[in-house]
Amino acid sequence: MTNKIIIKPIAFVKNNRKEPTDDNWSKIISMIELADEIPTESFDGINTFSHLHILFYFHKSEKTVYVGHPRGNKEYPKVGIFAQRKKDRPNHLGLTTVKLLKHEGRILTVSHLDAIDGTPIIDIKPFINAFLPQDKIKQPDWTLDIMKKYWKKE
Amino acid sequence: MTNKIIIKPIAFVKNNRKEPTDDNWSKIISMIELADEIPTESFDGINTFSHLHILFYFHKSEKTVYVGHPRGNKEYPKVGIFAQRKKDRPNHLGLTTVKLLKHEGRILTVSHLDAIDGTPIIDIKPFINAFLPQDKIKQPDWTLDIMKKYWKKE
Repeated sequence: MTNKIIIKPIAFVKNNRKEPTDDNWSKIISMIELADEIPTESFDGINTFSHLHILFYFHKSEKTVYVGHPRGNKEYPKVGIFAQRKKDRPNHLGLTTVKLLKHEGRILTVSHLDAIDGTPIIDIKPFINAFLPQDKIKQPDWTLDIMKKYWKKE
Repeated sequence: MTNKIIIKPIAFVKNNRKEPTDDNWSKIISMIELADEIPTESFDGINTFSHLHILFYFHKSEKTVYVGHPRGNKEYPKVGIFAQRKKDRPNHLGLTTVKLLKHEGRILTVSHLDAIDGTPIIDIKPFINAFLPQDKIKQPDWTLDIMKKYWKKE
Protein backbone atom coordinates (compact mmCIF):
# COMPACT_ATOMS: atom_id res chain seq x y z
CA MET A 1 0.00 0.00 0.00
CA THR A 2 1.15 3.51 -0.77
CA ASN A 3 1.50 5.32 2.52
CA LYS A 4 3.23 8.52 1.62
CA ILE A 5 2.82 10.46 -1.60
CA ILE A 6 5.10 13.35 -2.48
CA ILE A 7 3.69 15.98 -4.80
CA LYS A 8 4.99 19.31 -6.05
CA PRO A 9 3.30 22.57 -7.03
CA ILE A 10 2.78 22.86 -10.79
CA ALA A 11 1.76 26.52 -10.56
CA PHE A 12 1.07 29.32 -8.09
CA VAL A 13 -1.84 31.73 -7.57
CA LYS A 14 -1.40 35.48 -7.82
CA ASN A 15 -4.27 37.70 -6.70
CA ASN A 16 -5.03 40.45 -4.22
CA ARG A 17 -6.59 38.37 -1.44
CA LYS A 18 -3.79 37.87 1.07
CA GLU A 19 -5.68 36.18 3.90
CA PRO A 20 -8.34 33.45 3.93
CA THR A 21 -11.85 34.86 4.29
CA ASP A 22 -15.06 32.98 3.71
CA ASP A 23 -17.12 35.08 1.35
CA ASN A 24 -17.34 37.45 -1.62
CA TRP A 25 -15.06 35.54 -3.97
CA SER A 26 -16.65 36.73 -7.22
CA LYS A 27 -14.73 39.97 -7.27
CA ILE A 28 -11.35 38.19 -7.19
CA ILE A 29 -9.56 37.71 -10.50
CA SER A 30 -6.54 35.40 -10.22
CA MET A 31 -3.49 34.70 -12.32
CA ILE A 32 -2.15 31.16 -12.37
CA GLU A 33 1.54 31.04 -13.24
CA LEU A 34 3.32 27.77 -14.09
CA ALA A 35 6.12 26.67 -11.74
CA ASP A 36 9.62 27.00 -13.22
CA GLU A 37 10.08 23.29 -13.95
CA ILE A 38 6.80 22.85 -15.86
CA PRO A 39 7.08 23.41 -19.65
CA THR A 40 4.97 26.13 -21.27
CA GLU A 41 3.46 23.58 -23.71
CA SER A 42 1.56 22.02 -20.79
CA PHE A 43 -1.03 24.76 -21.41
CA ASP A 44 -1.33 24.10 -25.18
CA GLY A 45 -4.96 24.04 -26.27
CA ILE A 46 -6.27 24.97 -22.83
CA ASN A 47 -8.31 27.87 -24.22
CA THR A 48 -10.49 25.42 -26.16
CA PHE A 49 -12.14 24.95 -22.76
CA SER A 50 -14.21 27.58 -20.94
CA HIS A 51 -13.84 26.11 -17.45
CA LEU A 52 -11.14 24.27 -15.51
CA HIS A 53 -10.89 22.26 -12.30
CA ILE A 54 -8.14 23.63 -10.07
CA LEU A 55 -6.65 21.36 -7.39
CA PHE A 56 -4.70 23.30 -4.82
CA TYR A 57 -3.01 23.08 -1.45
CA PHE A 58 -4.29 25.07 1.55
CA HIS A 59 -0.74 26.05 2.52
CA LYS A 60 -1.81 28.13 5.53
CA SER A 61 -3.89 25.39 7.13
CA GLU A 62 -2.03 23.52 9.85
CA LYS A 63 -4.64 21.40 11.59
CA THR A 64 -7.20 18.74 10.74
CA VAL A 65 -10.74 18.75 12.12
CA TYR A 66 -12.45 15.39 11.45
CA VAL A 67 -15.95 16.39 12.52
CA GLY A 68 -17.64 19.70 13.30
CA HIS A 69 -20.19 22.35 12.43
CA PRO A 70 -19.59 23.91 8.98
CA ARG A 71 -18.19 27.44 9.48
CA GLY A 72 -18.30 26.70 13.24
CA ASN A 73 -21.99 27.67 13.13
CA LYS A 74 -24.00 25.64 15.65
CA GLU A 75 -27.17 26.20 13.64
CA TYR A 76 -25.71 23.83 11.06
CA PRO A 77 -25.48 20.12 11.85
CA LYS A 78 -22.19 18.61 13.04
CA VAL A 79 -20.84 16.66 10.06
CA GLY A 80 -17.70 14.77 9.09
CA ILE A 81 -14.88 16.44 7.19
CA PHE A 82 -15.74 14.53 3.99
CA ALA A 83 -19.27 15.97 4.09
CA GLN A 84 -17.95 19.55 4.00
CA ARG A 85 -15.35 21.66 2.16
CA LYS A 86 -13.54 23.13 5.19
CA LYS A 87 -9.81 23.71 4.62
CA ASP A 88 -8.68 22.08 7.91
CA ARG A 89 -8.90 18.60 6.40
CA PRO A 90 -6.58 15.63 5.96
CA ASN A 91 -4.06 16.57 3.25
CA HIS A 92 -5.36 20.18 3.12
CA LEU A 93 -6.42 19.92 -0.51
CA GLY A 94 -8.79 22.32 -2.25
CA LEU A 95 -10.79 21.92 -5.44
CA THR A 96 -12.69 24.54 -7.40
CA THR A 97 -14.08 24.96 -10.89
CA VAL A 98 -12.98 28.26 -12.41
CA LYS A 99 -13.79 30.22 -15.53
CA LEU A 100 -10.83 30.69 -17.88
CA LEU A 101 -10.67 34.32 -18.96
CA LYS A 102 -7.33 34.38 -20.76
CA HIS A 103 -4.31 32.22 -21.60
CA GLU A 104 -1.01 33.90 -22.39
CA GLY A 105 2.17 31.80 -22.39
CA ARG A 106 2.78 30.52 -18.87
CA ILE A 107 -0.10 32.43 -17.30
CA LEU A 108 -3.84 31.80 -17.07
CA THR A 109 -6.24 34.47 -15.89
CA VAL A 110 -9.32 33.04 -14.17
CA SER A 111 -12.34 34.01 -12.09
CA HIS A 112 -14.10 32.00 -9.34
CA LEU A 113 -10.89 30.67 -7.80
CA ASP A 114 -11.37 30.72 -4.01
CA ALA A 115 -7.68 30.52 -3.13
CA ILE A 116 -5.46 33.23 -1.66
CA ASP A 117 -2.33 34.82 -3.10
CA GLY A 118 0.62 32.43 -3.15
CA THR A 119 -1.44 29.23 -3.03
CA PRO A 120 0.37 26.26 -4.63
CA ILE A 121 -1.64 24.56 -7.38
CA ILE A 122 -1.08 20.82 -7.76
CA ASP A 123 -3.16 20.03 -10.86
CA ILE A 124 -5.38 21.59 -13.51
CA LYS A 125 -7.94 19.58 -15.48
CA PRO A 126 -10.37 20.63 -18.21
CA PHE A 127 -14.06 20.74 -17.31
CA ILE A 128 -15.86 18.15 -19.45
CA ASN A 129 -19.65 17.93 -19.39
CA ALA A 130 -19.74 14.14 -19.51
CA PHE A 131 -18.24 14.01 -16.01
CA LEU A 132 -21.17 15.85 -14.49
CA PRO A 133 -23.70 13.88 -12.44
CA GLN A 134 -26.23 12.34 -14.80
CA ASP A 135 -29.09 12.41 -12.30
CA LYS A 136 -30.68 14.58 -9.62
CA ILE A 137 -28.41 16.30 -7.08
CA LYS A 138 -29.24 16.00 -3.38
CA GLN A 139 -27.60 18.38 -0.91
CA PRO A 140 -28.58 19.52 2.60
CA ASP A 141 -30.13 22.94 3.28
CA TRP A 142 -27.12 24.28 5.21
CA THR A 143 -25.07 24.23 2.00
CA LEU A 144 -27.58 26.60 0.38
CA ASP A 145 -27.36 28.95 3.36
CA ILE A 146 -23.54 28.96 3.37
CA MET A 147 -23.33 29.65 -0.35
CA LYS A 148 -25.58 32.74 -0.27
CA LYS A 149 -22.68 35.14 0.20
CA TYR A 150 -19.86 32.99 -1.14
CA TRP A 151 -19.73 34.30 -4.69
CA LYS A 152 -21.34 37.64 -3.86
CA LYS A 153 -19.34 40.68 -5.00
CA GLU A 154 -19.96 42.88 -2.00
CA MET B 1 7.50 28.83 -1.54
CA THR B 2 6.26 25.34 -0.79
CA ASN B 3 8.24 22.98 -2.97
CA LYS B 4 7.37 19.58 -1.64
CA ILE B 5 4.03 18.50 -0.22
CA ILE B 6 3.59 15.19 1.56
CA ILE B 7 0.12 13.69 1.52
CA LYS B 8 -1.29 10.38 2.71
CA PRO B 9 -4.14 8.18 1.51
CA ILE B 10 -7.35 8.74 3.47
CA ALA B 11 -9.06 5.73 1.93
CA PHE B 12 -8.61 2.99 -0.66
CA VAL B 13 -10.72 1.75 -3.59
CA LYS B 14 -12.01 -1.81 -3.76
CA ASN B 15 -13.57 -3.00 -7.00
CA ASN B 16 -13.13 -5.68 -9.65
CA ARG B 17 -11.18 -3.69 -12.23
CA LYS B 18 -7.57 -4.68 -11.67
CA GLU B 19 -5.87 -2.96 -14.60
CA PRO B 20 -6.33 0.51 -16.13
CA THR B 21 -8.53 0.44 -19.24
CA ASP B 22 -10.08 3.43 -20.94
CA ASP B 23 -13.76 2.65 -21.32
CA ASN B 24 -16.96 1.09 -19.98
CA TRP B 25 -16.76 2.42 -16.45
CA SER B 26 -20.52 2.45 -15.76
CA LYS B 27 -20.65 -1.21 -14.85
CA ILE B 28 -18.06 -0.80 -12.07
CA ILE B 29 -19.35 -0.44 -8.52
CA SER B 30 -16.63 0.53 -6.04
CA MET B 31 -16.26 0.42 -2.30
CA ILE B 32 -14.26 3.20 -0.64
CA GLU B 33 -12.82 2.14 2.69
CA LEU B 34 -11.28 4.64 5.15
CA ALA B 35 -7.58 4.22 5.92
CA ASP B 36 -6.85 2.91 9.44
CA GLU B 37 -5.81 6.27 10.90
CA ILE B 38 -8.91 8.18 9.75
CA PRO B 39 -11.77 8.24 12.28
CA THR B 40 -15.14 6.79 11.27
CA GLU B 41 -16.91 10.10 12.13
CA SER B 42 -15.20 11.70 9.13
CA PHE B 43 -18.10 10.25 7.09
CA ASP B 44 -20.85 11.61 9.41
CA GLY B 45 -23.67 13.15 7.38
CA ILE B 46 -22.15 12.18 4.04
CA ASN B 47 -25.37 10.53 2.90
CA THR B 48 -27.17 13.87 2.95
CA PHE B 49 -25.37 14.31 -0.39
CA SER B 50 -26.11 12.33 -3.56
CA HIS B 51 -22.77 12.94 -5.27
CA LEU B 52 -19.14 13.32 -4.18
CA HIS B 53 -15.88 14.51 -5.69
CA ILE B 54 -13.18 11.87 -5.29
CA LEU B 55 -9.52 12.95 -5.51
CA PHE B 56 -7.21 10.03 -6.03
CA TYR B 57 -3.66 9.02 -6.88
CA PHE B 58 -2.86 7.14 -10.11
CA HIS B 59 -0.50 4.80 -8.25
CA LYS B 60 0.39 2.76 -11.35
CA SER B 61 1.41 5.76 -13.43
CA GLU B 62 5.16 6.31 -13.45
CA LYS B 63 5.77 8.89 -16.15
CA THR B 64 4.69 12.41 -17.08
CA VAL B 65 3.75 13.43 -20.60
CA TYR B 66 3.50 17.23 -20.87
CA VAL B 67 2.00 17.41 -24.35
CA GLY B 68 0.44 14.84 -26.69
CA HIS B 69 -2.59 13.50 -28.49
CA PRO B 70 -5.39 12.45 -26.10
CA ARG B 71 -5.52 8.63 -25.99
CA GLY B 72 -2.50 8.69 -28.35
CA ASN B 73 -4.99 9.15 -31.21
CA LYS B 74 -3.48 11.29 -33.99
CA GLU B 75 -6.95 12.29 -35.17
CA TYR B 76 -7.21 14.36 -32.00
CA PRO B 77 -5.16 17.55 -31.69
CA LYS B 78 -1.89 17.54 -29.73
CA VAL B 79 -2.65 19.35 -26.47
CA GLY B 80 -0.93 20.11 -23.18
CA ILE B 81 -1.41 17.90 -20.14
CA PHE B 82 -3.59 20.51 -18.40
CA ALA B 83 -6.00 20.46 -21.36
CA GLN B 84 -6.62 16.73 -20.92
CA ARG B 85 -7.31 14.17 -18.16
CA LYS B 86 -4.58 11.64 -19.00
CA LYS B 87 -3.13 9.86 -15.96
CA ASP B 88 0.54 10.37 -16.94
CA ARG B 89 0.55 13.91 -15.54
CA PRO B 90 2.59 15.86 -13.01
CA ASN B 91 1.61 14.56 -9.54
CA HIS B 92 -0.52 11.74 -11.06
CA LEU B 93 -3.71 13.00 -9.48
CA GLY B 94 -7.20 11.95 -10.57
CA LEU B 95 -10.56 13.59 -9.96
CA THR B 96 -14.03 12.22 -10.58
CA THR B 97 -17.56 12.95 -9.45
CA VAL B 98 -19.28 9.78 -8.23
CA LYS B 99 -22.76 8.82 -7.17
CA LEU B 100 -23.06 7.74 -3.54
CA LEU B 101 -25.10 4.53 -3.36
CA LYS B 102 -24.59 3.59 0.30
CA HIS B 103 -22.76 4.64 3.47
CA GLU B 104 -22.13 2.04 6.15
CA GLY B 105 -19.60 2.82 8.90
CA ARG B 106 -16.15 3.14 7.31
CA ILE B 107 -17.29 2.17 3.83
CA LEU B 108 -18.96 4.06 0.99
CA THR B 109 -20.38 2.26 -2.04
CA VAL B 110 -20.30 4.39 -5.19
CA SER B 111 -20.77 4.23 -8.95
CA HIS B 112 -18.96 6.22 -11.67
CA LEU B 113 -15.54 6.03 -10.03
CA ASP B 114 -13.00 5.48 -12.82
CA ALA B 115 -10.20 4.19 -10.59
CA ILE B 116 -8.86 0.65 -10.34
CA ASP B 117 -8.76 -1.68 -7.36
CA GLY B 118 -6.28 -0.55 -4.70
CA THR B 119 -6.19 3.10 -5.77
CA PRO B 120 -5.31 5.44 -2.88
CA ILE B 121 -7.86 8.21 -2.33
CA ILE B 122 -6.49 11.49 -1.00
CA ASP B 123 -9.67 13.51 -0.45
CA ILE B 124 -13.46 13.34 -0.67
CA LYS B 125 -15.64 16.45 -0.97
CA PRO B 126 -19.41 16.84 -1.24
CA PHE B 127 -20.83 17.91 -4.59
CA ILE B 128 -22.49 21.30 -4.11
CA ASN B 129 -24.48 22.86 -6.94
CA ALA B 130 -23.25 26.40 -6.29
CA PHE B 131 -19.75 25.36 -7.38
CA LEU B 132 -20.91 24.47 -10.87
CA PRO B 133 -20.08 26.83 -13.73
CA GLN B 134 -22.70 29.56 -13.85
CA ASP B 135 -22.44 30.10 -17.60
CA LYS B 136 -22.10 28.24 -20.88
CA ILE B 137 -19.55 25.41 -21.10
CA LYS B 138 -17.15 25.33 -24.05
CA GLN B 139 -15.24 22.12 -24.79
CA PRO B 140 -13.58 20.82 -27.99
CA ASP B 141 -15.16 18.13 -30.19
CA TRP B 142 -12.54 15.49 -29.39
CA THR B 143 -13.79 15.35 -25.80
CA LEU B 144 -17.24 14.37 -27.04
CA ASP B 145 -15.74 11.62 -29.20
CA ILE B 146 -13.62 10.23 -26.34
CA MET B 147 -16.53 10.16 -23.94
CA LYS B 148 -18.83 8.14 -26.22
CA LYS B 149 -17.73 4.80 -24.77
CA TYR B 150 -16.41 6.00 -21.44
CA TRP B 151 -19.44 5.35 -19.30
CA LYS B 152 -20.93 2.72 -21.61
CA LYS B 153 -21.77 -0.55 -19.92
CA GLU B 154 -20.63 -2.88 -22.69
